[in-house]
Amino acid sequence: MGKVNKPVVAWVSGTCARLFKSEVQFGHAGAKSGGEMESAQAKNQALKDAGAAVPTSYEAFETAIKETFEKLVEEGKISSVKEFTPPQIPEDLNFAIKSGKVRAPTHIISTISDDRGEEPCYAGVPMSSIVEQGYGVGDVISLLWFKRSLPRYCTHFIEICIMLCADHGPCVSGAHNTIVTARAGKDLVSSLVSGLLTIGPRFGGAIDDAARYFKDAYDRGLTPYEFVESMKKKGIRVPGIGHRIKRGDNRDKRVELLQQFAHTHFPSVKYMEYAVQVETYTLSKANNLVLNVDGAIGSLFLDLLAGSGMFSKQEIDEIVGIGYLNGLFVLARSIGLIGHTFDQKRLKQPLYRHPWEDVLYTK
Amino acid sequence: MGKVNKPVVAWVSGTCARLFKSEVQFGHAGAKSGGEMESAQAKNQALKDAGAAVPTSYEAFETAIKETFEKLVEEGKISSVKEFTPPQIPEDLNFAIKSGKVRAPTHIISTISDDRGEEPCYAGVPMSSIVEQGYGVGDVISLLWFKRSLPRYCTHFIEICIMLCADHGPCVSGAHNTIVTARAGKDLVSSLVSGLLTIGPRFGGAIDDAARYFKDAYDRGLTPYEFVESMKKKGIRVPGIGHRIKRGDNRDKRVELLQQFAHTHFPSVKYMEYAVQVETYTLSKANNLVLNVDGAIGSLFLDLLAGSGMFSKQEIDEIVGIGYLNGLFVLARSIGLIGHTFDQKRLKQPLYRHPWEDVLYTK
Amino acid sequence: MGKVNKPVVAWVSGTCARLFKSEVQFGHAGAKSGGEMESAQAKNQALKDAGAAVPTSYEAFETAIKETFEKLVEEGKISSVKEFTPPQIPEDLNFAIKSGKVRAPTHIISTISDDRGEEPCYAGVPMSSIVEQGYGVGDVISLLWFKRSLPRYCTHFIEICIMLCADHGPCVSGAHNTIVTARAGKDLVSSLVSGLLTIGPRFGGAIDDAARYFKDAYDRGLTPYEFVESMKKKGIRVPGIGHRIKRGDNRDKRVELLQQFAHTHFPSVKYMEYAVQVETYTLSKANNLVLNVDGAIGSLFLDLLAGSGMFSKQEIDEIVGIGYLNGLFVLARSIGLIGHTFDQKRLKQPLYRHPWEDVLYTK
Amino acid sequence: MGKVNKPVVAWVSGTCARLFKSEVQFGHAGAKSGGEMESAQAKNQALKDAGAAVPTSYEAFETAIKETFEKLVEEGKISSVKEFTPPQIPEDLNFAIKSGKVRAPTHIISTISDDRGEEPCYAGVPMSSIVEQGYGVGDVISLLWFKRSLPRYCTHFIEICIMLCADHGPCVSGAHNTIVTARAGKDLVSSLVSGLLTIGPRFGGAIDDAARYFKDAYDRGLTPYEFVESMKKKGIRVPGIGHRIKRGDNRDKRVELLQQFAHTHFPSVKYMEYAVQVETYTLSKANNLVLNVDGAIGSLFLDLLAGSGMFSKQEIDEIVGIGYLNGLFVLARSIGLIGHTFDQKRLKQPLYRHPWEDVLYTK
Repeated sequence: MGKVNKPVVAWVSGTCARLFKSEVQFGHAGAKSGGEMESAQAKNQALKDAGAAVPTSYEAFETAIKETFEKLVEEGKISSVKEFTPPQIPEDLNFAIKSGKVRAPTHIISTISDDRGEEPCYAGVPMSSIVEQGYGVGDVISLLWFKRSLPRYCTHFIEICIMLCADHGPCVSGAHNTIVTARAGKDLVSSLVSGLLTIGPRFGGAIDDAARYFKDAYDRGLTPYEFVESMKKKGIRVPGIGHRIKRGDNRDKRVELLQQFAHTHFPSVKYMEYAVQVETYTLSKANNLVLNVDGAIGSLFLDLLAGSGMFSKQEIDEIVGIGYLNGLFVLARSIGLIGHTFDQKRLKQPLYRHPWEDVLYTK
Repeated sequence: MGKVNKPVVAWVSGTCARLFKSEVQFGHAGAKSGGEMESAQAKNQALKDAGAAVPTSYEAFETAIKETFEKLVEEGKISSVKEFTPPQIPEDLNFAIKSGKVRAPTHIISTISDDRGEEPCYAGVPMSSIVEQGYGVGDVISLLWFKRSLPRYCTHFIEICIMLCADHGPCVSGAHNTIVTARAGKDLVSSLVSGLLTIGPRFGGAIDDAARYFKDAYDRGLTPYEFVESMKKKGIRVPGIGHRIKRGDNRDKRVELLQQFAHTHFPSVKYMEYAVQVETYTLSKANNLVLNVDGAIGSLFLDLLAGSGMFSKQEIDEIVGIGYLNGLFVLARSIGLIGHTFDQKRLKQPLYRHPWEDVLYTK
Repeated sequence: MGKVNKPVVAWVSGTCARLFKSEVQFGHAGAKSGGEMESAQAKNQALKDAGAAVPTSYEAFETAIKETFEKLVEEGKISSVKEFTPPQIPEDLNFAIKSGKVRAPTHIISTISDDRGEEPCYAGVPMSSIVEQGYGVGDVISLLWFKRSLPRYCTHFIEICIMLCADHGPCVSGAHNTIVTARAGKDLVSSLVSGLLTIGPRFGGAIDDAARYFKDAYDRGLTPYEFVESMKKKGIRVPGIGHRIKRGDNRDKRVELLQQFAHTHFPSVKYMEYAVQVETYTLSKANNLVLNVDGAIGSLFLDLLAGSGMFSKQEIDEIVGIGYLNGLFVLARSIGLIGHTFDQKRLKQPLYRHPWEDVLYTK
Repeated sequence: MGKVNKPVVAWVSGTCARLFKSEVQFGHAGAKSGGEMESAQAKNQALKDAGAAVPTSYEAFETAIKETFEKLVEEGKISSVKEFTPPQIPEDLNFAIKSGKVRAPTHIISTISDDRGEEPCYAGVPMSSIVEQGYGVGDVISLLWFKRSLPRYCTHFIEICIMLCADHGPCVSGAHNTIVTARAGKDLVSSLVSGLLTIGPRFGGAIDDAARYFKDAYDRGLTPYEFVESMKKKGIRVPGIGHRIKRGDNRDKRVELLQQFAHTHFPSVKYMEYAVQVETYTLSKANNLVLNVDGAIGSLFLDLLAGSGMFSKQEIDEIVGIGYLNGLFVLARSIGLIGHTFDQKRLKQPLYRHPWEDVLYTK
């Protein structure tokens, strides 16, 4: 590297470190300032010794540059160029928005949570309040899904539903796909997701369907007979009715517990009672056509919405239309699917390959 | 269609319906038997009238077939073929397995839940017990993920973590992708899943990382100084330390609440105390390097595992290795992502298109 | 460890290695047999020296065991137990199935490919034939989706559609979500999938919709006027019509190229001609209501199916009903989404966070 | 409704329609202007008749308002309010950016395609060129993944790889999960995605692994012996070597075809030759340790990159590091997974439930 012939004006910042007794950090938290040789003073002195124009303080830097420039012009080494008006420096967007000069349309609307303050809020409730006031998981669901704080019996009911739907063994579509993906050595999220994607009309959809059909039938004032027979005509099985093992004389204990809970806490159980009337009719047809857990949850969820007095009719229609119960099932079953992923990883299971013998290869 | 010249032996079943006073259903529950003209008797009579050989009962059916056959042979209309030994009829697989004749290897192993009985069991506990005994969501997670019933303070702590991680506004990767997918008109599961897939090393991974690094450092007996400086050398930021807003003199209330809870209920908080010592050191470097919620959850989860006395050292290593905390974050955030999906659907938001102006198109 | 007092009958296998001149491998391919000291002979001799009963060959092993046993009985050291009939050893399932003793129902049916032979077959065509006969990607799609070998002009058309739909920039829903996921540090599959999940009614669905509506209108004999006006009444925009930039006097070159290709190769373009008639009517309403690429692909796909003469009317209905064109779009766009993932990884882009300023936080 | 006492100044726009001979549309394309009675002129006349102040043209509207206002002030019916300076109207963001007043940082960078013009470009090449110049699917992949136009023999090789990897029967993880999801009644994207998520280290990862390991071994100058034995020490099976059926004396035809193609077209096949040398060594160990399709594709992909002369060493490392071959497998297998979805939907298969008998329920 050759010698620098151009005049150099330089300044090493950090001289104020001298003014502090103890060691002071500049820049990255971890930078450790060194001894005398590394001080800014020493560096400035070295630059001066090497011929650079070094001002006595940062404030004098501008003047030093100006003097050096004017000296070069005077000596004829450089010639001054004509001043021109610098182009307007564009303002920073956020500053321009705040000062009202620019209006930027927002592209996203969100109403359930706000993370801009010191701590996130769910429907206006700060996270720390949620902990301090002893809220449960059901209450957080209430805030984030329903945007209001439902009474504790409602959020407790939501929690019971989550517990009842959390898992249903390794053979159902969702758990099966999750197990296969976990055994392919994939990460937790991929395994969970591969299983979740099977949830829909045929797997997990019965709760949501039960709520929809019971609501429609009840609201339209159909008798159980009219409801069941109209479903039969359309070729649709009544969702929420029917069980593999349970019979009219051997009821599902889970259904009974849900009913007990509702009788104790809910102000009204009209939808559930309607579902029971439907069951009475279907039991007259076959002994296994009992009200099952899906039907109990579906009808009681309608009672929760209607009985709480916190939703308009239109809001209830919207909630049922969008399929909130589907969300409840999806959330609940995630517990099981994550559990199955952990299970396979603990067991160090190898890649799954479906046995050829179980496949009918045809045309 | 021409006349049938071949002899017909026929029988319409259902004649026993006569023996019942009231109407009896055969076949599908909804089939309604008709009047006299539709009775089995009437149909058999009609067949007889048309020239068919109709036995007097189902039991006589075989004889009628035999007699008709022999008559045809006698008349020389057909000739008898030689009897041959019929091939063995293969047994039904499930029957053969039960009778011990065949052993079919199983291709899947599962240890967390069993759905073969009257009601599903989680780690051996029947669902109805879970409701009756007032279990919470955390207890079900305990059963399905840890395969044991952890003390209530542990499962309560898990619930608090879920509530704190349930959402963090619409701008983070997960919520954003979920919002975009919901606005593309896709179903709940697709919307949720599209967001979940962003969870990993950079989004949501800090809790798991905090647990891993704190565990490793504590177990290896590193001083906070050694730990932080060794991380710096590796160029890794200490997970669980640092906050956008919070400072040493303005602590995060959520962290304080978690610490309070642990001090009250946990038999030991050694990992959390280690994390606090690490914080003391990092705060000496910069005022915003406080212990954050991720760090608090990560270290306290280690105390939960170690303090409960229900896990062997090897089991704890496995749990941390597999990444259970990641599962906790994924489950928790699902609540928020489902909430964002409902939110966008309620708001009837149209297809999102990222603004061209926000993209630097380059080579 | 104490001395063994019980009589030992033992045999180390591997003595036949002696019979081979060169080194022979037993067990894992990498096991290297050692020197004399490690030979089976040496080990057997050592056992004999230590007092074990060692036979002279593997065949004599059984006799040695019997003799030792009888000697022990004779000496009164042990007493003989009564022989009992051993339980039937269950047969291996696959052997039992092959020998016709058991029938195992298959749970899965598959008709498109077979991987049981030396090399996989697509719809009966072995993979090597596909390479040897110079098939293209479109031909493989033809075999796996349509289960028949469509003429080359058809599979070429499919390839052109794939190329045209492969990408549409980084701002559309799919690419955007893929970019966000890639920037969260997630793997290729997760990134791709997060984007794919946005494909549906509002993003990518126009091609499929165009085919459906044009088919329905044409098959029902609606005039363009009747078709467009009936859509308007239902509040549905005619899919495949309309462009952001293109106008009646500035046609989309891609549409023209597709039309040219079809005019040259397709035996009939009746659906496309119908689409053009619809365009003529919509252009009389507004100059930007031109036939776009979606409409061109959708209508020409109908011509492909109808014109090839290889599908029954019912099969065509099924293909349109199932939504094969959706599959074509999904496959094509996967090329772009994978490309965007690679792009972000090459660019080492950090975690994306949507800017707060772009969100309207409301209630 | 009472009588309006306040003075009304009104104007119905659309009077210029008079100036056109034929019917002219205003507003929505479908609005049909009516007869004389509905004309703007008629409406203005009716307003005038009813006592409103109706100007003679739109331009006179402002004056009419002013006159009416001044008349009311004059009559003392209203009093004038003091003029005040209106607040600055914020400028529209895009306008402010274009005029250089505001600088908005971009949050996304993208380099592979541009959709802002008349038609999208892939790496600078407009879509219509792609069709006109007879490009194939491999060429589009070349543009979108490699950002350059690779020679036709390269893109042809890519297409062959896609065809060979498109499907491998219904029993592998990916197809299996896709089939299960399709049978759960889910849409095409969900079905495809559920299968894709199983692709990773154990399923589909061998091609990518083969490329990585062969590259590393060759570049480091390891002999086949050193390479294979070092893998054995690490407990890793050599990827790309080994076949279920194929043997040293019964080679895989697909491998031979790939090799033939490369020998004919590639300027160099050094990596593939190295793979063959590795095979020679492994065949000396066991007769089934042949170079398989994965190994052939993996090594030849390295030859493609190195031989084309279009990539720097660093770029090749990046491509192998990011895992482009994984992308190729994912894209290829999507063809098969979409095919399996269509297959199950055609077959109208019901919900899959894994048989209990195939599960070992344990603790």
